[in-house]
Amino acid sequence: MAVAAPADHVHPAWLPAQAWRAIGSRHTLVSGTEKSVATVYAEVRAACDRFGGSVTRLSVDGEADLMLALTGAAGPGATAGAVDDLGEEGYTLGRTGGLTTVTADAPAGLLYGLFHVVRLGESAFGDDMATRTHRPAIRRRMLDHWDNVDVHPVMGQVERGYSGGSIFWRDGAITDDLDRVRAYARLLAASGVNAVTINNVNVGRTEARLLTDRLDDVATFADIFRPYGIRLHLSVTFAAPMVLGGLATADPLDEAVRDWWAATTAQVYARVPDFGGYVVKADSEGQPGPFAYGRSHADGANLLADALAPYGGVVHWRAFVYNHRQDWRDRTTDRARAAYDHFAPLDGQFRDNAIVQVKYGPVDFQPREPVSPVIGAMPATRLAVELQVTQEYTGHQLHVCYLPPLWSEVLGFRFDGDSLEADGDVSGDLGSSVAAIAGRGGTLAAVSNVGDDPFWCGHPLAQANLYAFGRLGWDPTADPTALLDEWIDLTFPAGDAAGTVADPGRLRQALHAMMDGSWRTYERYTAPLGVGFMVNPGNHYGPSVDGYEYSRWGTYHFADRDGVGVDRTRATGTGYTGQYPKPWSEVYESLTDCPDELLLFFHHVPYDHLLHSGSTVIQHIYDTHFAGVDEAIAMRERWLDIADAGLDPALYARVADRLDEQVRSAREWRDQINTYFFRRSGIPDAHGRRIH
Amino acid sequence: MAVAAPADHVHPAWLPAQAWRAIGSRHTLVSGTEKSVATVYAEVRAACDRFGGSVTRLSVDGEADLMLALTGAAGPGATAGAVDDLGEEGYTLGRTGGLTTVTADAPAGLLYGLFHVVRLGESAFGDDMATRTHRPAIRRRMLDHWDNVDVHPVMGQVERGYSGGSIFWRDGAITDDLDRVRAYARLLAASGVNAVTINNVNVGRTEARLLTDRLDDVATFADIFRPYGIRLHLSVTFAAPMVLGGLATADPLDEAVRDWWAATTAQVYARVPDFGGYVVKADSEGQPGPFAYGRSHADGANLLADALAPYGGVVHWRAFVYNHRQDWRDRTTDRARAAYDHFAPLDGQFRDNAIVQVKYGPVDFQPREPVSPVIGAMPATRLAVELQVTQEYTGHQLHVCYLPPLWSEVLGFRFDGDSLEADGDVSGDLGSSVAAIAGRGGTLAAVSNVGDDPFWCGHPLAQANLYAFGRLGWDPTADPTALLDEWIDLTFPAGDAAGTVADPGRLRQALHAMMDGSWRTYERYTAPLGVGFMVNPGNHYGPSVDGYEYSRWGTYHFADRDGVGVDRTRATGTGYTGQYPKPWSEVYESLTDCPDELLLFFHHVPYDHLLHSGSTVIQHIYDTHFAGVDEAIAMRERWLDIADAGLDPALYARVADRLDEQVRSAREWRDQINTYFFRRSGIPDAHGRRIH
Repeated sequence: MAVAAPADHVHPAWLPAQAWRAIGSRHTLVSGTEKSVATVYAEVRAACDRFGGSVTRLSVDGEADLMLALTGAAGPGATAGAVDDLGEEGYTLGRTGGLTTVTADAPAGLLYGLFHVVRLGESAFGDDMATRTHRPAIRRRMLDHWDNVDVHPVMGQVERGYSGGSIFWRDGAITDDLDRVRAYARLLAASGVNAVTINNVNVGRTEARLLTDRLDDVATFADIFRPYGIRLHLSVTFAAPMVLGGLATADPLDEAVRDWWAATTAQVYARVPDFGGYVVKADSEGQPGPFAYGRSHADGANLLADALAPYGGVVHWRAFVYNHRQDWRDRTTDRARAAYDHFAPLDGQFRDNAIVQVKYGPVDFQPREPVSPVIGAMPATRLAVELQVTQEYTGHQLHVCYLPPLWSEVLGFRFDGDSLEADGDVSGDLGSSVAAIAGRGGTLAAVSNVGDDPFWCGHPLAQANLYAFGRLGWDPTADPTALLDEWIDLTFPAGDAAGTVADPGRLRQALHAMMDGSWRTYERYTAPLGVGFMVNPGNHYGPSVDGYEYSRWGTYHFADRDGVGVDRTRATGTGYTGQYPKPWSEVYESLTDCPDELLLFFHHVPYDHLLHSGSTVIQHIYDTHFAGVDEAIAMRERWLDIADAGLDPALYARVADRLDEQVRSAREWRDQINTYFFRRSGIPDAHGRRIH
Repeated sequence: MAVAAPADHVHPAWLPAQAWRAIGSRHTLVSGTEKSVATVYAEVRAACDRFGGSVTRLSVDGEADLMLALTGAAGPGATAGAVDDLGEEGYTLGRTGGLTTVTADAPAGLLYGLFHVVRLGESAFGDDMATRTHRPAIRRRMLDHWDNVDVHPVMGQVERGYSGGSIFWRDGAITDDLDRVRAYARLLAASGVNAVTINNVNVGRTEARLLTDRLDDVATFADIFRPYGIRLHLSVTFAAPMVLGGLATADPLDEAVRDWWAATTAQVYARVPDFGGYVVKADSEGQPGPFAYGRSHADGANLLADALAPYGGVVHWRAFVYNHRQDWRDRTTDRARAAYDHFAPLDGQFRDNAIVQVKYGPVDFQPREPVSPVIGAMPATRLAVELQVTQEYTGHQLHVCYLPPLWSEVLGFRFDGDSLEADGDVSGDLGSSVAAIAGRGGTLAAVSNVGDDPFWCGHPLAQANLYAFGRLGWDPTADPTALLDEWIDLTFPAGDAAGTVADPGRLRQALHAMMDGSWRTYERYTAPLGVGFMVNPGNHYGPSVDGYEYSRWGTYHFADRDGVGVDRTRATGTGYTGQYPKPWSEVYESLTDCPDELLLFFHHVPYDHLLHSGSTVIQHIYDTHFAGVDEAIAMRERWLDIADAGLDPALYARVADRLDEQVRSAREWRDQINTYFFRRSGIPDAHGRRIH
């Protein structure tokens, strides 16, 4: 096989040619059967073609700098490196006597080991390194693509996509640029992702047919992802037996329905033997589901799980179920409660291969939410924790917003109240953390931010979110700041050739300063203190303080002339705090103990309420909004400072344009939020700054 | 020619078969050359075919009940009835000795006379009537269709259309249902309309080509409208010389540009000799215009006027020019001022055949605005006053909102301060009224509410707005209430055949009660006291109090915890009041004299400000919003009361469904507005009603 190369105009992201220099200029032995090591061999071969090194599979004649050996059942080659069961994806890596050695039991593991060497670059070939074993902490690291085959009249081709059209579909058919898909698969493998869905969870009529008469499309993509250790999953509609099968019902307990799913799934596996499984959004925002038949979500999920079980497939069943036709006048309904109320009682009723997929927060991918209590409430169920790489509520890839610090906080959240030590040791005690819960045979899932944009993500710097997602899925204890630097070093390699920069240290410093705190900057100039959702309805970009205040979507802030916030206490509010175990049920309930950053999520307080920070709520609003804009301006200044750093002019200009928009938008946020709260509260800014 | 009959599924509106019974069952003489009276003859012929009467053009053998005689230059027939110059559209009508006589100088006049007899029905053939002369008060009564040839990705096919697709265009081509267009032309003629544009003032690339290589489409429609006395106008883009002509400029003073327009216009008239002229939206909401070349709007309008002048055509040049990229933080800019600031200084600079088209209010078709000061400020310019039949801001034809009382107030507004006596006498003194100003060779224009919906207008009762628009254009002093009854009687004729009702009196009473006050009901439950624009951005349906508060569109209310309203005074505000002559410049400036219904348009006042009505502003808000909903509910009750009246079941059900939506929407308005102002003011309802 040949290594996929996207068209010249497509940015190489974190796999530029220079990233392969250390390997490609050396001598490598790839050990294993031709088929099993084909991907690894081809990657090293391509690197050597460019940088003058050599690669062999046949013998160990002469000295090798790097040995990549497939061991165990999957590979008949050298076995020296195997210290214990590495599984499908694990590998060992060490260096001694001038030889860097990677061993794995299975092709995917060897590939992950190779990419580890790529990340290390020259340092993989320096001092000796003790051999260490590496295994992913979470079984599945999955990217969900909300891509429509047909362009949706409202949502466009990629729902919540900010990077152009789909890389999978064009004009209702499969793309004719499959090289782009191959290049994508390769990037994902290098980041640690091992599962994808290629269609939107909102399944339209055209997309429904991927399951049956458009199975060839699915097989084509599966063939492309397979060499990179990535399994293909499919979003399906719960109504498929009716829509596709012509049945009168989709009742999960109906025999004909069960037969239809069994037969249909058999056909899928006949065509794609390593098919990953189904993803389902049911009884959610208008999608069909088991409620129509008086059945539970366990009934629904198990129906599909049973169909998939004979082949080792899994169903990801989303817990994003709530009343989206809520009446804002009814204060007893709390959207934050919904997923827990629906799913927690079902714990223990799901099959082993049914994975309940839970958004990280109880509402919807806000820049700040508490961790969803559902994640801590289903110990007998496999769970997928769902993040959002695409910046739906975090600036549409027009704003720099490096999200891994948020994700890291979520993954490290412990339901027992202890904070997770991020010691970089994947074998460390994950305790009751979200990462540990997802690690119990579950999944770390995320909505992708990729489209057919030349920079993949609209904003070139948004590639860092995509990269770090996979890396955190492999090792949730990884330091987001270190991952950022890792991404910078890979993406902007040193050198004097095209695509390299002369002074990578200076560039790294600038990018690091721009990106590392950018999520908190974004939080500062948008909705304050965890209250969320002060965005324009529909597109979710830019401020609209009351945009969802009278909305059927159930997303309110209740600001009046005296105060703001949502009372979710047991004592006087919606009782949502009771969905947490201790200590969180007490911490969040208490106005004294509740963390500042979530105060307005849990409590309605007067504007002069004193925060732990020493500031009042109203002064905090003013201060953070002025500060957030200043930080956005400083971000842009840093970019202007490196205008001479030798970056690709198209990339430089793209980022510069988007920083202009970020500054404009941040000012709009600041001025609308400050004006709104000044008009309501009548309390002037303590520092006398201009509020309109 | 044959009388146009739309497909069976299309509602006959105000020309059902029964409306022709009185004529069709009698003996009529149509006098005039075959060609000149063709339309009139065909209409009477069709009525006689149905109801057993007779019609002849050849002689007066035997007794006639009705004589329709074309006199003067245009017709060689009987001349007895002509008392003075009737012009193209005037006619006389009288009855004596058992003969009802209509005379006219031109075909259109005779047709209007015929439709007058239709309106009179049996009473045209009862007691003697003194012969009276009828002439339209306003030269042009024009319907503008904001129809796109191609479906616009955001605005759909008909911009601000709520009645389905276009009746003119389908799938980028001319419709294949030309009978529907013929039926429409006939309805318009019966209401008094004599001009139409068939494409949107926002001219896309496809629509631009109507002027040149798609002229056949224009000619096809002109041929359809011509027999009904209706001239066809075309919306054109100011950039046409560049877009279509390949010129490098559209500068109105450039010789090549002037030549291009002259040559292009010559080709239009070669194909459509009675072509009406152009409609232009220039330098407005992104449309190109003369500002790009440092030229004035007079330069722009005169360019087109000069091209049209040799053929008797006119250009309608819209005055809807304002900064639509305003910064809400800048309180010195006032959108209400814009049209006057742009156009008033140009008075006297426009050609005689350049008509400046002014929206009735200074902002944008709100349910309540003061009359635009531009209308009173250009005595040396021909003006078109633009209304909106389509219910963009008045409920999307989902709400019953009979608009003629609003239009009548506008048309009767006198810049000198005297109120217009609506004495039904078209020869009465219109003084300085808006109607008189439009009557100075100008136009009454309106955006149509018609689409390919079986009921034409989405809401069957919205047909009344379309009907009364034409009738008010003919006679601005007509009583809107009388026009409503006229429409009811024509549309729901008495009888026991299909399409008739057994008890028309009861039906009229119910419809009258539902519709006559419906505009004020709509006003009560929406934005209070003239402040306007508390609608959802974009679609303009339903409440969003802050929807435009931070908007670039320049439409604010400035509500804070103390008060609400826009200060447009000269003393402390934007100075807009200074655009009116006395007494209005004083009346509106004065907090004491300003009419309640416009208070918040002109003044920012505290919530406890006392209105002339004796209520405070805040209590007025509460009271009107509770009352408005009660009225909407009563409206629905009245409709339920006449479920047994024998109406067409499809029509009945359509109205019933929409009344449900109106009640739901009115409640949403009430609750959002009341809650918003309660949360800001903290002042409780004096009557203790529930505010959320």
